[in-house]
Amino acid sequence: MIKTDHGSVQTPNFMSVGTVGSVKGVETRELKELGAEITLANAYHLYLRPGIDVLEKMGGLHRFMAWDRPVLVDSGGFQVFSLSDFRKVREEGVTFRSHIDGSKHLFTPEKVIEIQRSIGADFVMPLDHLVGWPAKEKEADDAAQRTWRWLERGIKAFEESQPKYGHEQVLLPIVQGSFYELLRRREAERFAALDAAAYAIGGLTVGEDSTQTREAVDIVTSCLPDDRFRYSMGVGRPEDLLDQVGRGIDLFDCVVPTRNGRNGTLFTMNGRLNMRNARWANDDRPVEEGCPCPACTQYSRGYIRHLYVSQELLALKLGSVHNLSFFYRLMAAMREHIDAGDYDAWASAKAEEITPLREN
Amino acid sequence: MIKTDHGSVQTPNFMSVGTVGSVKGVETRELKELGAEITLANAYHLYLRPGIDVLEKMGGLHRFMAWDRPVLVDSGGFQVFSLSDFRKVREEGVTFRSHIDGSKHLFTPEKVIEIQRSIGADFVMPLDHLVGWPAKEKEADDAAQRTWRWLERGIKAFEESQPKYGHEQVLLPIVQGSFYELLRRREAERFAALDAAAYAIGGLTVGEDSTQTREAVDIVTSCLPDDRFRYSMGVGRPEDLLDQVGRGIDLFDCVVPTRNGRNGTLFTMNGRLNMRNARWANDDRPVEEGCPCPACTQYSRGYIRHLYVSQELLALKLGSVHNLSFFYRLMAAMREHIDAGDYDAWASAKAEEITPLREN
Repeated sequence: MIKTDHGSVQTPNFMSVGTVGSVKGVETRELKELGAEITLANAYHLYLRPGIDVLEKMGGLHRFMAWDRPVLVDSGGFQVFSLSDFRKVREEGVTFRSHIDGSKHLFTPEKVIEIQRSIGADFVMPLDHLVGWPAKEKEADDAAQRTWRWLERGIKAFEESQPKYGHEQVLLPIVQGSFYELLRRREAERFAALDAAAYAIGGLTVGEDSTQTREAVDIVTSCLPDDRFRYSMGVGRPEDLLDQVGRGIDLFDCVVPTRNGRNGTLFTMNGRLNMRNARWANDDRPVEEGCPCPACTQYSRGYIRHLYVSQELLALKLGSVHNLSFFYRLMAAMREHIDAGDYDAWASAKAEEITPLREN
Repeated sequence: MIKTDHGSVQTPNFMSVGTVGSVKGVETRELKELGAEITLANAYHLYLRPGIDVLEKMGGLHRFMAWDRPVLVDSGGFQVFSLSDFRKVREEGVTFRSHIDGSKHLFTPEKVIEIQRSIGADFVMPLDHLVGWPAKEKEADDAAQRTWRWLERGIKAFEESQPKYGHEQVLLPIVQGSFYELLRRREAERFAALDAAAYAIGGLTVGEDSTQTREAVDIVTSCLPDDRFRYSMGVGRPEDLLDQVGRGIDLFDCVVPTRNGRNGTLFTMNGRLNMRNARWANDDRPVEEGCPCPACTQYSRGYIRHLYVSQELLALKLGSVHNLSFFYRLMAAMREHIDAGDYDAWASAKAEEITPLREN
């Protein structure tokens, strides 16, 4: 259980991605009805648009996006590295150009804390230096060392500043270390010694294979204190969540449910459906029997297929809300099986069931 | 009041446009919550996609789109003339190529009735021959004469066929006649003599000026029996609805609320808002005070502006539901003022209030 001034979050849990303060196509009231207990936004995007002055004038992100549950805000380090045409990393921070208008900006560890104070995130992320995979050991080491030095500056800036909207904010250090075992372990150990309230694991699913992801997660979770929640950034597919919860991860975020929802790949407890497939044209069953989402309670597979094939706006929304419902139901099932004590056996069977493409 | 086996429709009323069986971006349950009593779909589009065989297997359009209120289905005459690259009008019917895949099809007056029997429309429209404006008198006359002959064939096909899903279907003749006074009157008079259950006025807003539209409406409404409802096809802007209700029109359909909603032009009882305007960036008021739609009850102008500027999917939906709510509230206000006996004075004042772009 994660406690915040905006209410509690059961663990393990999943955060929908509301990059600019909106989970694509879904109203905040709908997000709550689907079972969302926490959502994620992105400091890089919010800083560029609508801008920090607007967020401050509007009373912070919660009020702006009409969401009264917890928000975790990513620092934007990942976006600086993935979206910007131009970036230059110095010890001071990272200079980049906006992907929107090409304007030049500098993110320092201190600036990123200041931005997230203005956003009003319940969980604040420090600026980190991400490397992709493959990466040379020297490069991975340098980035991890810089992430640590930036964290120290971030912690100082965080301790010297105050929340702006009357609710508590918590800083989540991000453990980097790429896929070099000793490097990952060294980082995890010194992060563990920080005695932070919670931790994020960064630098996953950047090009490595799934064995490497698993090894990195195992190293980090074996080092971190048991009683602090662990957030695995940007993970992932349903089978990844089932696996990583078994390895001690408590919190995830990923665009998988919404992006797949928009593309027409819908998840069910018995496998995935490609909704554009002609096999569903006359099928009057819901996408998933018993699913409480607005797609399944109102519409047939045949109708939803028609919406995708006709490129109707409503398809994007229905696919997104169904997949979000699936993710929240999957996390709820994980919590039940953890309580029941049969998680590992259940999770490996479940991963087999949900992964294949359905033919009926 | 319009009565159907799917319930009653208060008049005057407005039909949202659900071309392929979906009002763009809006769930059917949301459409009901907004106050929709009837919606419109299009036989040309539904015939091409999902196809009549699918609609029959799925139990007709109401069941397919999960909508238990009345549906009026346009014959697709307009789409054949506006969307198809290729079309050839013969006495038999109109040959056209699909705008989707270029395949060749023939719509005859009989075929269009058969299609709408399979769709299960509460209100069925015959195939008509539309002309744009300007049009030569000979061309307009030929099209009106053909519309009449096609109507006679359509009525015969309608009388010789049966509803497929157990609910009554009603055929609505479409009065054409372009903007030649004598021609319009001749058509209106012979249509009136048909003693149909209701009538549609076609061929409006095809390039003529607003004086011509008004004169054509006046000619037709003065000829048609008072106790049958009159549907003005494809009309229109809020000020057009206010005007035409005063001229005796009972029912409208138009893409104006949803298309403007997607583009960011939102209607209110005090004028229109261009939601992309920077003036709304820090505005924490709703788009329209007192509006019961999901946009106004949850979100500020500042947030909704941010969604449009950031090209977020949710903007398209919020703009559409707000504008639909506005249209339904406007129609409800018209009904109240008709009952109160002060319609004309109220409507001209209201048209002045709702038209200007708002600056605050």
